[in-house]
Amino acid sequence: MALIVQKYGGTSVGSTERIQAVAEKVKRYHDEGNQIVVVVSAMSGKTNELIALAADITSRPSAREMDVLLSTGEQVTIALLTMALHKLGVDARSYTGGQVHIRTDSSHSKARIVDIHGDRVKADLDAGRVVVVAGFQGTDEHGNITTLGRGGSDTTAVAMAAALDADECQIFTDVDGVYTTDPRVEPNARKLDRITFEEMLELASSGSKVLQIRSVEFAGKYNVPLRVLSSFEEGEGTLITLEEEDMEKAKIAGIAFSRDEAKLTIRGVPDHPGVAYQILGPIGEANIEVDMIVQNIGKDGTTDFTFTIHRNDLDEAVGILQKTADEIGAREVEYDDKIVKIALVGVGMRSHAAIASNMFKALAKEQINIQMISTSEIKVSVVVEEKYLELGVRTLHEAFGLDQVET
Amino acid sequence: MALIVQKYGGTSVGSTERIQAVAEKVKRYHDEGNQIVVVVSAMSGKTNELIALAADITSRPSAREMDVLLSTGEQVTIALLTMALHKLGVDARSYTGGQVHIRTDSSHSKARIVDIHGDRVKADLDAGRVVVVAGFQGTDEHGNITTLGRGGSDTTAVAMAAALDADECQIFTDVDGVYTTDPRVEPNARKLDRITFEEMLELASSGSKVLQIRSVEFAGKYNVPLRVLSSFEEGEGTLITLEEEDMEKAKIAGIAFSRDEAKLTIRGVPDHPGVAYQILGPIGEANIEVDMIVQNIGKDGTTDFTFTIHRNDLDEAVGILQKTADEIGAREVEYDDKIVKIALVGVGMRSHAAIASNMFKALAKEQINIQMISTSEIKVSVVVEEKYLELGVRTLHEAFGLDQVET
Repeated sequence: MALIVQKYGGTSVGSTERIQAVAEKVKRYHDEGNQIVVVVSAMSGKTNELIALAADITSRPSAREMDVLLSTGEQVTIALLTMALHKLGVDARSYTGGQVHIRTDSSHSKARIVDIHGDRVKADLDAGRVVVVAGFQGTDEHGNITTLGRGGSDTTAVAMAAALDADECQIFTDVDGVYTTDPRVEPNARKLDRITFEEMLELASSGSKVLQIRSVEFAGKYNVPLRVLSSFEEGEGTLITLEEEDMEKAKIAGIAFSRDEAKLTIRGVPDHPGVAYQILGPIGEANIEVDMIVQNIGKDGTTDFTFTIHRNDLDEAVGILQKTADEIGAREVEYDDKIVKIALVGVGMRSHAAIASNMFKALAKEQINIQMISTSEIKVSVVVEEKYLELGVRTLHEAFGLDQVET
Repeated sequence: MALIVQKYGGTSVGSTERIQAVAEKVKRYHDEGNQIVVVVSAMSGKTNELIALAADITSRPSAREMDVLLSTGEQVTIALLTMALHKLGVDARSYTGGQVHIRTDSSHSKARIVDIHGDRVKADLDAGRVVVVAGFQGTDEHGNITTLGRGGSDTTAVAMAAALDADECQIFTDVDGVYTTDPRVEPNARKLDRITFEEMLELASSGSKVLQIRSVEFAGKYNVPLRVLSSFEEGEGTLITLEEEDMEKAKIAGIAFSRDEAKLTIRGVPDHPGVAYQILGPIGEANIEVDMIVQNIGKDGTTDFTFTIHRNDLDEAVGILQKTADEIGAREVEYDDKIVKIALVGVGMRSHAAIASNMFKALAKEQINIQMISTSEIKVSVVVEEKYLELGVRTLHEAFGLDQVET
């Protein structure tokens, strides 16, 4: 008998028919003798409907009141799913975030969970009940309703699993697991049976949006085994866990990429200490997130400084950088939004320095010019011209044998 | 400066436009220096929408889960109204029933309020805020969400007014006050400026559905001045209070009537103690509510027993009564659903025994035959043929001078 926390997202509970299908799935796990906690999102479309109501009234709704409004979406789902379970003869009970003491800070619309009391849920589980909990929401120390922000239901599920010391946290989505890369780009992409938290984090932050990053961080921190699997198909999905001995074999877990990048270069910057801060300070103040940063020292006592940002922020960033260039006496500002980022991710990289050079060699063989390189402990990212995205991903997928099943 | 609890029903908050109109009304009262608590219902149509979702899943939803589901309706309204108030520059805060400790018993879908802590609301009011509370809902001692049943928002408002020792509880509806009788039947019907709780209760129980009966009982019990007024028009409405000296002048407050009655008679019942229970016991067990009851002793040691019920229950009641008649050896069962009830209501009746006979005289003059009579301390009800409804109401309205303004 295992204690399992399952999370079903908005698409999985998008209609009363689908809610009944989820109830049947839950019943199956429950019938196998498992203790089940189900965390659900709002029915798909519901949240946008509520946002539209608020928009009818004001363009700047208070964050506190938005949380009161949006939290009703999940509350509807928990009641309906519990009714569907009852209809199948499964004893079940629904709870809002506040009712099971999902205590958060007071940052409305992007609250962080600070504590969960599992007592009430445990008592229900011990009485043989399935417990259905509203995702995405909690209450602060004053009892105000808070929400964790979009996608926060994943975090609720993981936090609940941690609080209950669950055996596994299962995230049901519309994909059947984590792949070595996006199958739409590389048809040979292979579903992974296992991956580490760190790899998953790097894949997610490089554009593979299977899970919300915060939920993976949370799972890693509390060592909650996390499984991604499909709401609609059968299968074991992908298990995300701590690094284990036998995982060493898989040097590379997968290839992530992002099409939303733009590159900015400021040339001929007088090279003195503090110049990086002078350049990036105003960018950060404008809430523009900077991803890769490369600085090349030139010959004439000046330096070239290049960084990447989200493509949507390009116009604003160019304006800021132009002003900075004038102030610090740099020569010119260049930008390029026809670039993409490709990243090779894997814990095996730690002990195999050769991986990066193999990566560069494979890309060179296809005449793909690398514009920027950035490395972290378990990731190597490169920026290349946009047109090389598919070719680059497929080349690396093959070069590192990612279509081969691990042996 | 007065502390006022205002309640706006589903029609008054039926769209985002109407919610904004309510916000403007609230702001006006607040600008006049009053402390305002607003209790709201779900937007009209919303509750039925939620019920339809549940019906999609099961024909017998658990009452606990229905309460979790339905309570989201009011939660949406409180958030939207608070946003609308913010937009008008009014400091405001929304609360669910649970958040302001509207503690109820555990009778899901028809819970009764057992306690309200006004502390949190008081603190907000003292800070100059308008407090917006979800009507119709509360939580039981275990924190489960409960609802008070349809129309329960009136009760929430009155209970909140009692807990806060408010100066007045204002119920905004789609009528502009309480009338001497239904203006659709008697065009000369006059809006009352004042009426007592007892009169209001008798009017309500005899078919004038301006307010939910329980909310009037509650207001009477805690002596909360209750005012009924229109959401859409200006005006003072009708104030419902305890009986006062100068109210003695108004002998009759109004005329109520009900078209939903049916009459059942069981004839030739052997007259012995306990026979009333033998007849009405099985009716009560079937959850059929009995209104007027009349027993006539016959000549031959038998008695005729007549009572009225809601017309919808007639078929079932006839079946039950037929069975009872056989068992107790009664002669026959008769029924008539072409009847109506007309009732004269007024605290003045207590001290004026002549009122009943004047009523019978006025009806006799119009050849209206009275089939049943029932009297209470402040009400005289008669059952007459259905076709005499309008004539009877108008005759009594004129006979008792109800179209004349009190002087």
